[in-house]
Amino acid sequence: MKTRPSIVLFGDSITEESFRYGGWGASLTDTYSRKADIVVRGYDGYTTRWALFLLDHIFPLSSTTPPVAATVFLGANDAALPGRTWERLHVPLEEYKENLRKIVRHLKECSPTMLIVLITPPPIDEEGRLEFAKSMYGEKAMKLPERTNEVTGDYANGCVEVAKEFGVSSVNLWSRMQETQGWQKKFLSDGLHLTPDGNKVVFEEVLKVFNGAWLSAIDMPYDFPQYSDIDPHNPEKAFQNV
Amino acid sequence: MKTRPSIVLFGDSITEESFRYGGWGASLTDTYSRKADIVVRGYDGYTTRWALFLLDHIFPLSSTTPPVAATVFLGANDAALPGRTWERLHVPLEEYKENLRKIVRHLKECSPTMLIVLITPPPIDEEGRLEFAKSMYGEKAMKLPERTNEVTGDYANGCVEVAKEFGVSSVNLWSRMQETQGWQKKFLSDGLHLTPDGNKVVFEEVLKVFNGAWLSAIDMPYDFPQYSDIDPHNPEKAFQNV
Repeated sequence: MKTRPSIVLFGDSITEESFRYGGWGASLTDTYSRKADIVVRGYDGYTTRWALFLLDHIFPLSSTTPPVAATVFLGANDAALPGRTWERLHVPLEEYKENLRKIVRHLKECSPTMLIVLITPPPIDEEGRLEFAKSMYGEKAMKLPERTNEVTGDYANGCVEVAKEFGVSSVNLWSRMQETQGWQKKFLSDGLHLTPDGNKVVFEEVLKVFNGAWLSAIDMPYDFPQYSDIDPHNPEKAFQNV
Repeated sequence: MKTRPSIVLFGDSITEESFRYGGWGASLTDTYSRKADIVVRGYDGYTTRWALFLLDHIFPLSSTTPPVAATVFLGANDAALPGRTWERLHVPLEEYKENLRKIVRHLKECSPTMLIVLITPPPIDEEGRLEFAKSMYGEKAMKLPERTNEVTGDYANGCVEVAKEFGVSSVNLWSRMQETQGWQKKFLSDGLHLTPDGNKVVFEEVLKVFNGAWLSAIDMPYDFPQYSDIDPHNPEKAFQNV
Protein backbone atom coordinates (compact mmCIF):
# COMPACT_ATOMS: atom_id res chain seq x y z
CA MET A 1 0.00 0.00 0.00
CA LYS A 2 1.25 3.47 -0.87
CA THR A 3 2.56 5.18 2.23
CA ARG A 4 0.75 8.29 3.27
CA PRO A 5 1.89 9.93 6.50
CA SER A 6 0.00 8.48 9.43
CA ILE A 7 -1.35 10.13 12.56
CA VAL A 8 -1.96 7.80 15.52
CA LEU A 9 -4.68 8.43 18.07
CA PHE A 10 -3.45 6.63 21.20
CA GLY A 11 -5.63 6.49 24.29
CA ASP A 12 -8.49 4.88 26.19
CA SER A 13 -12.20 4.44 25.44
CA ILE A 14 -12.60 8.10 24.51
CA THR A 15 -10.21 7.41 21.66
CA GLU A 16 -11.59 3.93 20.91
CA GLU A 17 -15.09 5.42 20.51
CA SER A 18 -13.94 8.32 18.37
CA PHE A 19 -15.46 6.94 15.16
CA ARG A 20 -19.01 6.86 16.47
CA TYR A 21 -21.59 9.40 15.33
CA GLY A 22 -19.87 12.79 15.20
CA GLY A 23 -16.67 11.32 16.65
CA TRP A 24 -13.47 13.36 16.73
CA GLY A 25 -11.43 10.56 15.09
CA ALA A 26 -13.83 10.36 12.16
CA SER A 27 -13.77 14.15 11.78
CA LEU A 28 -9.96 14.14 11.68
CA THR A 29 -10.05 11.36 9.07
CA ASP A 30 -12.37 13.45 6.95
CA THR A 31 -10.21 16.57 7.36
CA TYR A 32 -7.02 14.73 6.35
CA SER A 33 -8.77 12.87 3.55
CA ARG A 34 -6.25 12.04 0.78
CA LYS A 35 -3.50 13.68 2.85
CA ALA A 36 -2.82 11.45 5.88
CA ASP A 37 -4.16 8.26 7.41
CA ILE A 38 -5.68 8.50 10.87
CA VAL A 39 -4.89 5.32 12.79
CA VAL A 40 -7.01 4.67 15.87
CA ARG A 41 -5.34 2.93 18.79
CA GLY A 42 -7.81 3.43 21.64
CA TYR A 43 -8.15 0.89 24.45
CA ASP A 44 -11.23 0.92 26.63
CA GLY A 45 -10.39 0.97 30.34
CA TYR A 46 -6.66 1.42 29.85
CA THR A 47 -4.52 3.52 32.15
CA THR A 48 -1.06 4.91 31.46
CA ARG A 49 0.34 1.94 33.42
CA TRP A 50 -1.11 -0.54 30.94
CA ALA A 51 -0.50 1.69 27.93
CA LEU A 52 3.25 1.29 28.53
CA PHE A 53 2.99 -2.36 27.51
CA LEU A 54 1.70 -1.31 24.09
CA LEU A 55 4.37 1.23 23.17
CA ASP A 56 6.79 -1.16 21.48
CA HIS A 57 3.97 -2.68 19.46
CA ILE A 58 2.19 0.48 18.36
CA PHE A 59 5.29 2.66 18.04
CA PRO A 60 8.14 0.23 17.26
CA LEU A 61 11.50 1.97 17.46
CA SER A 62 12.64 0.10 14.36
CA SER A 63 9.90 1.54 12.15
CA THR A 64 11.12 3.13 8.95
CA THR A 65 7.85 5.02 8.55
CA PRO A 66 6.90 6.23 12.03
CA PRO A 67 3.75 8.32 12.38
CA VAL A 68 4.18 12.03 11.78
CA ALA A 69 1.96 12.84 14.75
CA ALA A 70 0.32 11.18 17.74
CA THR A 71 -2.29 12.22 20.25
CA VAL A 72 -1.93 10.73 23.73
CA PHE A 73 -5.25 10.87 25.51
CA LEU A 74 -4.96 9.07 28.85
CA GLY A 75 -5.72 9.79 32.49
CA ALA A 76 -9.48 9.46 32.79
CA ASN A 77 -8.98 5.92 34.10
CA ASP A 78 -5.84 6.65 36.13
CA ALA A 79 -7.94 9.21 38.04
CA ALA A 80 -10.48 6.60 39.25
CA LEU A 81 -10.46 6.90 43.04
CA PRO A 82 -9.08 4.25 45.40
CA GLY A 83 -11.78 2.71 47.56
CA ARG A 84 -14.52 3.31 44.99
CA THR A 85 -16.08 1.19 42.23
CA TRP A 86 -13.24 1.51 39.73
CA GLU A 87 -10.40 1.30 42.22
CA ARG A 88 -8.68 -1.33 40.07
CA LEU A 89 -7.95 1.31 37.46
CA HIS A 90 -6.41 3.80 39.88
CA VAL A 91 -2.88 5.00 39.14
CA PRO A 92 -1.42 7.53 41.61
CA LEU A 93 -0.88 11.02 40.21
CA GLU A 94 2.93 10.94 40.38
CA GLU A 95 3.05 7.58 38.62
CA TYR A 96 0.63 8.90 35.99
CA LYS A 97 2.99 11.77 35.28
CA GLU A 98 6.01 9.48 35.20
CA ASN A 99 4.21 7.11 32.82
CA LEU A 100 3.36 10.02 30.53
CA ARG A 101 7.05 10.98 30.55
CA LYS A 102 7.95 7.43 29.52
CA ILE A 103 5.41 7.61 26.71
CA VAL A 104 6.72 10.96 25.42
CA ARG A 105 10.33 9.75 25.61
CA HIS A 106 9.39 6.63 23.66
CA LEU A 107 7.58 8.62 20.97
CA LYS A 108 10.54 10.98 20.63
CA GLU A 109 12.87 8.02 20.30
CA CYS A 110 10.53 6.52 17.70
CA SER A 111 10.73 9.76 15.73
CA PRO A 112 12.38 12.99 16.94
CA THR A 113 10.16 14.98 14.61
CA MET A 114 6.85 13.43 15.67
CA LEU A 115 4.23 16.03 16.59
CA ILE A 116 3.10 14.89 20.05
CA VAL A 117 -0.13 16.18 21.55
CA LEU A 118 -1.03 15.27 25.12
CA ILE A 119 -4.74 15.57 25.80
CA THR A 120 -5.95 15.84 29.40
CA PRO A 121 -8.93 13.85 30.60
CA PRO A 122 -12.27 15.66 30.19
CA PRO A 123 -13.95 17.08 33.29
CA ILE A 124 -16.18 14.78 35.33
CA ASP A 125 -19.87 15.39 35.87
CA GLU A 126 -20.20 13.56 39.19
CA GLU A 127 -23.99 13.69 39.12
CA GLY A 128 -23.90 12.20 35.62
CA ARG A 129 -21.65 9.38 36.85
CA LEU A 130 -24.05 8.55 39.69
CA GLU A 131 -27.04 8.57 37.34
CA PHE A 132 -25.17 6.32 34.95
CA ALA A 133 -24.21 3.91 37.74
CA LYS A 134 -27.83 3.77 38.88
CA SER A 135 -29.02 3.06 35.34
CA MET A 136 -26.51 0.21 35.14
CA TYR A 137 -26.59 -1.33 38.59
CA GLY A 138 -29.82 -0.08 40.16
CA GLU A 139 -29.88 -0.17 43.94
CA LYS A 140 -26.46 -1.79 44.01
CA ALA A 141 -24.94 1.30 42.45
CA MET A 142 -22.27 3.19 44.34
CA LYS A 143 -23.48 6.10 46.42
CA LEU A 144 -20.26 8.05 45.88
CA PRO A 145 -18.91 8.77 42.40
CA GLU A 146 -15.91 6.70 41.35
CA ARG A 147 -14.22 9.77 39.92
CA THR A 148 -14.45 13.39 41.06
CA ASN A 149 -13.98 16.46 38.93
CA GLU A 150 -11.47 17.90 41.38
CA VAL A 151 -9.15 14.90 41.40
CA THR A 152 -9.40 14.51 37.61
CA GLY A 153 -8.39 18.18 37.46
CA ASP A 154 -5.16 17.29 39.30
CA TYR A 155 -4.42 14.71 36.60
CA ALA A 156 -5.22 17.26 33.90
CA ASN A 157 -2.73 19.69 35.47
CA GLY A 158 -0.17 16.91 35.71
CA CYS A 159 -0.61 16.15 32.02
CA VAL A 160 -0.12 19.80 31.03
CA GLU A 161 2.99 20.00 33.26
CA VAL A 162 4.56 16.97 31.58
CA ALA A 163 3.86 18.47 28.15
CA LYS A 164 5.61 21.68 29.24
CA GLU A 165 8.62 19.76 30.60
CA PHE A 166 9.17 18.24 27.17
CA GLY A 167 8.08 21.23 25.12
CA VAL A 168 5.34 19.22 23.42
CA SER A 169 1.79 20.38 22.74
CA SER A 170 -1.17 19.80 25.00
CA VAL A 171 -4.92 20.28 24.99
CA ASN A 172 -6.36 21.03 28.42
CA LEU A 173 -9.75 19.55 27.77
CA TRP A 174 -10.63 19.63 31.47
CA SER A 175 -10.40 23.45 31.55
CA ARG A 176 -11.57 24.09 28.03
CA MET A 177 -14.84 22.23 28.43
CA GLN A 178 -15.68 23.89 31.73
CA GLU A 179 -15.59 27.30 30.05
CA THR A 180 -18.97 26.45 28.49
CA GLN A 181 -22.14 26.82 30.56
CA GLY A 182 -23.89 23.46 30.95
CA TRP A 183 -20.77 21.49 29.94
CA GLN A 184 -21.95 18.61 32.14
CA LYS A 185 -24.73 17.50 29.78
CA LYS A 186 -23.67 19.33 26.63
CA PHE A 187 -20.30 17.60 26.33
CA LEU A 188 -20.64 14.43 28.43
CA SER A 189 -23.06 11.57 27.82
CA ASP A 190 -22.58 9.69 31.11
CA GLY A 191 -20.53 12.17 33.09
CA LEU A 192 -17.29 11.02 31.44
CA HIS A 193 -17.63 9.95 27.79
CA LEU A 194 -18.32 12.44 25.03
CA THR A 195 -21.50 13.56 23.29
CA PRO A 196 -21.25 14.65 19.64
CA ASP A 197 -20.78 18.22 20.95
CA GLY A 198 -18.02 17.01 23.24
CA ASN A 199 -16.37 15.22 20.33
CA LYS A 200 -16.51 18.46 18.39
CA VAL A 201 -14.51 20.23 21.11
CA VAL A 202 -11.78 17.58 20.99
CA PHE A 203 -11.71 17.69 17.18
CA GLU A 204 -11.44 21.48 17.09
CA GLU A 205 -8.77 21.68 19.78
CA VAL A 206 -6.61 18.96 18.22
CA LEU A 207 -7.00 20.53 14.79
CA LYS A 208 -5.96 23.90 16.22
CA VAL A 209 -2.72 22.32 17.47
CA PHE A 210 -2.10 20.49 14.16
CA ASN A 211 -2.80 23.64 12.14
CA GLY A 212 -0.60 25.72 14.41
CA ALA A 213 2.26 23.28 13.88
CA TRP A 214 3.27 22.08 10.42
CA LEU A 215 0.44 19.66 9.97
CA SER A 216 -2.27 21.75 8.36
CA ALA A 217 -4.28 19.60 5.93
CA ILE A 218 -4.68 22.53 3.54
CA ASP A 219 -0.91 22.73 3.05
CA MET A 220 -0.42 18.99 2.52
CA PRO A 221 -0.30 17.47 -0.95
CA TYR A 222 -3.05 15.24 -2.30
CA ASP A 223 -1.91 11.63 -2.65
CA PHE A 224 -3.00 11.46 -6.30
CA PRO A 225 -4.12 13.97 -8.94
CA GLN A 226 -7.42 15.73 -8.38
CA TYR A 227 -9.98 14.87 -11.04
CA SER A 228 -9.98 18.42 -12.33
CA ASP A 229 -6.28 18.05 -13.18
CA ILE A 230 -6.85 14.94 -15.26
CA ASP A 231 -7.18 15.46 -19.01
CA PRO A 232 -9.92 13.06 -20.10
CA HIS A 233 -8.26 12.67 -23.50
CA ASN A 234 -4.84 12.01 -22.03
CA PRO A 235 -5.22 10.76 -18.45
CA GLU A 236 -1.79 9.09 -18.47
CA LYS A 237 -0.16 12.49 -18.27
CA ALA A 238 -1.57 13.33 -14.83
CA PHE A 239 -0.33 10.01 -13.43
CA GLN A 240 3.16 10.09 -14.96
CA ASN A 241 4.81 11.58 -11.89
CA VAL A 242 2.89 9.58 -9.30
CA MET B 1 3.29 -0.19 14.04
CA LYS B 2 1.71 -3.50 14.96
CA THR B 3 0.01 -4.99 11.94
CA ARG B 4 -3.71 -5.48 12.23
CA PRO B 5 -5.53 -6.77 9.18
CA SER B 6 -6.60 -3.91 6.97
CA ILE B 7 -9.74 -3.38 4.94
CA VAL B 8 -9.46 -0.91 2.06
CA LEU B 9 -12.39 1.20 0.89
CA PHE B 10 -11.57 2.01 -2.74
CA GLY B 11 -13.81 4.29 -4.72
CA ASP B 12 -14.89 7.79 -5.67
CA SER B 13 -16.29 10.71 -3.68
CA ILE B 14 -18.90 8.52 -1.99
CA THR B 15 -15.99 6.64 -0.44
CA GLU B 16 -13.86 9.75 0.12
CA GLU B 17 -16.71 11.36 2.09
CA SER B 18 -17.47 8.25 4.12
CA PHE B 19 -16.06 9.69 7.36
CA ARG B 20 -18.43 12.63 7.49
CA TYR B 21 -21.29 12.73 9.98
CA GLY B 22 -22.82 9.25 10.09
CA GLY B 23 -20.53 8.07 7.29
CA TRP B 24 -20.33 4.40 6.36
CA GLY B 25 -16.52 4.34 6.57
CA ALA B 26 -16.57 5.73 10.10
CA SER B 27 -19.23 3.19 11.11
CA LEU B 28 -17.10 0.34 9.75
CA THR B 29 -14.08 1.70 11.63
CA ASP B 30 -16.11 1.70 14.83
CA THR B 31 -17.42 -1.81 14.20
CA TYR B 32 -13.93 -3.22 13.57
CA SER B 33 -12.43 -1.24 16.44
CA ARG B 34 -9.39 -3.11 17.84
CA LYS B 35 -9.90 -5.82 15.21
CA ALA B 36 -9.01 -4.35 11.80
CA ASP B 37 -7.94 -1.03 10.32
CA ILE B 38 -10.25 0.58 7.81
CA VAL B 39 -8.17 2.38 5.19
CA VAL B 40 -10.01 4.94 3.09
CA ARG B 41 -8.89 5.36 -0.52
CA GLY B 42 -11.69 7.39 -2.05
CA TYR B 43 -11.07 9.77 -4.96
CA ASP B 44 -13.59 12.46 -5.77
CA GLY B 45 -14.58 12.48 -9.43
CA TYR B 46 -12.69 9.30 -10.33
CA THR B 47 -13.98 6.79 -12.83
CA THR B 48 -12.87 3.18 -13.28
CA ARG B 49 -10.65 4.38 -16.12
CA TRP B 50 -8.62 6.60 -13.79
CA ALA B 51 -8.81 4.18 -10.87
CA LEU B 52 -6.72 1.73 -12.92
CA PHE B 53 -3.73 4.07 -12.55
CA LEU B 54 -3.91 3.75 -8.77
CA LEU B 55 -4.01 -0.04 -8.48
CA ASP B 56 -0.26 -0.64 -8.31
CA HIS B 57 0.10 2.06 -5.68
CA ILE B 58 -2.81 1.18 -3.43
CA PHE B 59 -2.64 -2.59 -3.93
CA PRO B 60 1.03 -3.31 -4.75
CA LEU B 61 1.48 -6.88 -5.88
CA SER B 62 4.68 -7.10 -3.85
CA SER B 63 2.95 -6.37 -0.53
CA THR B 64 3.64 -8.90 2.21
CA THR B 65 0.59 -7.71 4.15
CA PRO B 66 -2.13 -7.15 1.56
CA PRO B 67 -5.55 -6.07 2.81
CA VAL B 68 -7.88 -8.88 3.89
CA ALA B 69 -10.80 -7.18 2.20
CA ALA B 70 -11.60 -4.36 -0.20
CA THR B 71 -14.74 -2.60 -1.28
CA VAL B 72 -14.74 -1.29 -4.85
CA PHE B 73 -17.34 1.42 -5.18
CA LEU B 74 -17.11 2.96 -8.66
CA GLY B 75 -19.44 3.73 -11.52
CA ALA B 76 -21.36 6.81 -10.43
CA ASN B 77 -18.94 8.95 -12.47
CA ASP B 78 -18.55 6.50 -15.36
CA ALA B 79 -22.33 6.79 -15.82
CA ALA B 80 -22.23 10.56 -16.44
CA LEU B 81 -23.88 11.05 -19.85
CA PRO B 82 -22.04 12.14 -22.99
CA GLY B 83 -23.19 15.53 -24.21
CA ARG B 84 -24.14 16.74 -20.73
CA THR B 85 -22.35 18.75 -18.02
CA TRP B 86 -20.10 15.97 -16.77
CA GLU B 87 -19.37 14.43 -20.14
CA ARG B 88 -15.63 14.45 -19.35
CA LEU B 89 -16.21 11.72 -16.76
CA HIS B 90 -18.16 9.42 -19.08
CA VAL B 91 -16.84 5.89 -19.53
CA PRO B 92 -18.88 3.63 -21.86
CA LEU B 93 -20.65 0.74 -20.16
CA GLU B 94 -18.59 -2.01 -21.77
CA GLU B 95 -15.35 -0.28 -20.85
CA TYR B 96 -16.65 0.22 -17.27
CA LYS B 97 -17.24 -3.53 -17.01
CA GLU B 98 -13.85 -4.33 -18.51
CA ASN B 99 -12.16 -1.91 -16.09
CA LEU B 100 -13.93 -3.56 -13.15
CA ARG B 101 -12.66 -6.91 -14.39
CA LYS B 102 -9.12 -5.51 -14.46
CA ILE B 103 -9.55 -4.25 -10.91
CA VAL B 104 -10.86 -7.59 -9.64
CA ARG B 105 -8.06 -9.49 -11.39
CA HIS B 106 -5.50 -7.15 -9.85
CA LEU B 107 -6.95 -7.56 -6.35
CA LYS B 108 -6.98 -11.35 -6.71
CA GLU B 109 -3.36 -11.25 -7.86
CA CYS B 110 -2.52 -9.02 -4.88
CA SER B 111 -4.09 -11.62 -2.59
CA PRO B 112 -6.05 -14.67 -3.72
CA THR B 113 -7.89 -14.71 -0.37
CA MET B 114 -8.93 -11.06 -0.39
CA LEU B 115 -12.65 -10.58 0.26
CA ILE B 116 -13.73 -8.38 -2.66
CA VAL B 117 -17.02 -6.52 -2.55
CA LEU B 118 -18.18 -4.61 -5.62
CA ILE B 119 -20.69 -1.90 -4.78
CA THR B 120 -22.91 -0.52 -7.53
CA PRO B 121 -23.51 3.21 -7.86
CA PRO B 122 -26.52 4.48 -5.89
CA PRO B 123 -29.67 5.39 -7.80
CA ILE B 124 -29.95 8.91 -9.22
CA ASP B 125 -32.63 11.37 -8.20
CA GLU B 126 -32.71 13.39 -11.42
CA GLU B 127 -34.84 16.13 -9.89
CA GLY B 128 -32.34 16.37 -7.04
CA ARG B 129 -29.48 16.72 -9.52
CA LEU B 130 -31.26 19.55 -11.34
CA GLU B 131 -32.00 21.33 -8.05
CA PHE B 132 -28.38 20.93 -7.03
CA ALA B 133 -27.12 22.28 -10.37
CA LYS B 134 -29.43 25.28 -10.04
CA SER B 135 -28.20 25.99 -6.52
CA MET B 136 -24.62 25.89 -7.80
CA TYR B 137 -24.84 27.57 -11.21
CA GLY B 138 -28.13 29.48 -11.15
CA GLU B 139 -29.55 30.27 -14.57
CA LYS B 140 -26.48 28.76 -16.23
CA ALA B 141 -27.36 25.36 -14.83
CA MET B 142 -28.03 22.52 -17.21
CA LYS B 143 -31.66 21.92 -18.11
CA LEU B 144 -31.16 18.18 -18.48
CA PRO B 145 -29.64 16.05 -15.70
CA GLU B 146 -26.04 14.95 -16.28
CA ARG B 147 -26.89 11.47 -15.06
CA THR B 148 -30.14 9.53 -15.33
CA ASN B 149 -31.38 6.83 -13.02
CA GLU B 150 -32.02 4.49 -15.91
CA VAL B 151 -28.52 4.68 -17.36
CA THR B 152 -26.94 4.42 -13.92
CA GLY B 153 -29.06 1.30 -13.46
CA ASP B 154 -27.34 -0.22 -16.52
CA TYR B 155 -23.98 0.39 -14.85
CA ALA B 156 -25.30 -1.14 -11.62
CA ASN B 157 -26.36 -4.26 -13.54
CA GLY B 158 -22.98 -4.36 -15.23
CA CYS B 159 -21.26 -4.23 -11.87
CA VAL B 160 -23.32 -7.10 -10.48
CA GLU B 161 -22.63 -9.14 -13.64
CA VAL B 162 -18.88 -8.70 -13.28
CA ALA B 163 -19.07 -9.76 -9.61
CA LYS B 164 -20.94 -12.90 -10.68
CA GLU B 165 -18.38 -13.67 -13.41
CA PHE B 166 -15.65 -13.75 -10.80
CA GLY B 167 -17.68 -15.23 -7.96
CA VAL B 168 -17.01 -12.20 -5.75
CA SER B 169 -19.57 -10.41 -3.59
CA SER B 170 -21.60 -7.42 -4.63
CA VAL B 171 -24.00 -4.93 -3.12
CA ASN B 172 -26.64 -3.70 -5.53
CA LEU B 173 -27.13 -0.32 -3.94
CA TRP B 174 -29.08 0.96 -6.93
CA SER B 175 -31.85 -1.65 -6.40
CA ARG B 176 -31.62 -1.81 -2.63
CA MET B 177 -32.16 1.90 -2.09
CA GLN B 178 -35.12 2.07 -4.46
CA GLU B 179 -36.98 -0.47 -2.34
CA THR B 180 -37.59 2.32 0.20
CA GLN B 181 -40.39 4.82 -0.39
CA GLY B 182 -38.97 8.34 -0.70
CA TRP B 183 -35.43 7.08 -1.36
CA GLN B 184 -34.76 10.19 -3.44
CA LYS B 185 -34.54 12.55 -0.46
CA LYS B 186 -34.11 10.03 2.35
CA PHE B 187 -30.87 8.55 1.03
CA LEU B 188 -29.50 11.20 -1.34
CA SER B 189 -28.45 14.73 -0.40
CA ASP B 190 -28.02 16.16 -3.91
CA GLY B 191 -29.53 13.43 -6.03
CA LEU B 192 -26.26 11.44 -5.97
CA HIS B 193 -24.27 11.70 -2.72
CA LEU B 194 -25.45 10.11 0.50
CA THR B 195 -27.36 11.46 3.49
CA PRO B 196 -26.65 9.91 6.91
CA ASP B 197 -29.56 7.51 6.21
CA GLY B 198 -28.03 6.64 2.85
CA ASN B 199 -24.69 6.02 4.53
CA LYS B 200 -26.44 3.68 6.95
CA VAL B 201 -27.71 1.58 4.04
CA VAL B 202 -24.19 1.20 2.63
CA PHE B 203 -22.79 0.38 6.07
CA GLU B 204 -25.44 -2.26 6.75
CA GLU B 205 -25.16 -3.87 3.33
CA VAL B 206 -21.37 -4.05 3.42
CA LEU B 207 -21.46 -5.38 6.97
CA LYS B 208 -23.95 -8.04 5.91
CA VAL B 209 -21.47 -9.24 3.26
CA PHE B 210 -18.52 -9.15 5.68
CA ASN B 211 -20.49 -11.00 8.36
CA GLY B 212 -21.71 -13.56 5.85
CA ALA B 213 -18.13 -14.24 4.80
CA TRP B 214 -15.35 -14.86 7.32
CA LEU B 215 -14.93 -11.28 8.36
CA SER B 216 -17.36 -10.89 11.25
CA ALA B 217 -15.91 -8.47 13.81
CA ILE B 218 -17.41 -10.47 16.67
CA ASP B 219 -15.32 -13.50 15.72
CA MET B 220 -12.07 -11.58 15.32
CA PRO B 221 -9.55 -11.31 18.14
CA TYR B 222 -8.87 -8.07 20.00
CA ASP B 223 -5.43 -6.70 19.21
CA PHE B 224 -4.49 -6.46 22.92
CA PRO B 225 -5.99 -7.72 26.19
CA GLN B 226 -9.31 -6.27 27.26
CA TYR B 227 -9.04 -4.28 30.47
CA SER B 228 -11.23 -6.79 32.31
CA ASP B 229 -8.62 -9.48 31.60
CA ILE B 230 -5.80 -7.46 33.13
CA ASP B 231 -4.96 -8.26 36.75
CA PRO B 232 -4.24 -4.86 38.34
CA HIS B 233 -1.74 -6.47 40.72
CA ASN B 234 0.04 -8.35 37.97
CA PRO B 235 -0.59 -6.61 34.64
CA GLU B 236 2.55 -8.10 33.06
CA LYS B 237 0.82 -11.45 32.87
CA ALA B 238 -1.89 -10.30 30.45
CA PHE B 239 0.73 -8.85 28.11
CA GLN B 240 3.17 -11.79 28.16
CA ASN B 241 1.80 -13.41 25.03
CA VAL B 242 1.25 -10.23 23.06
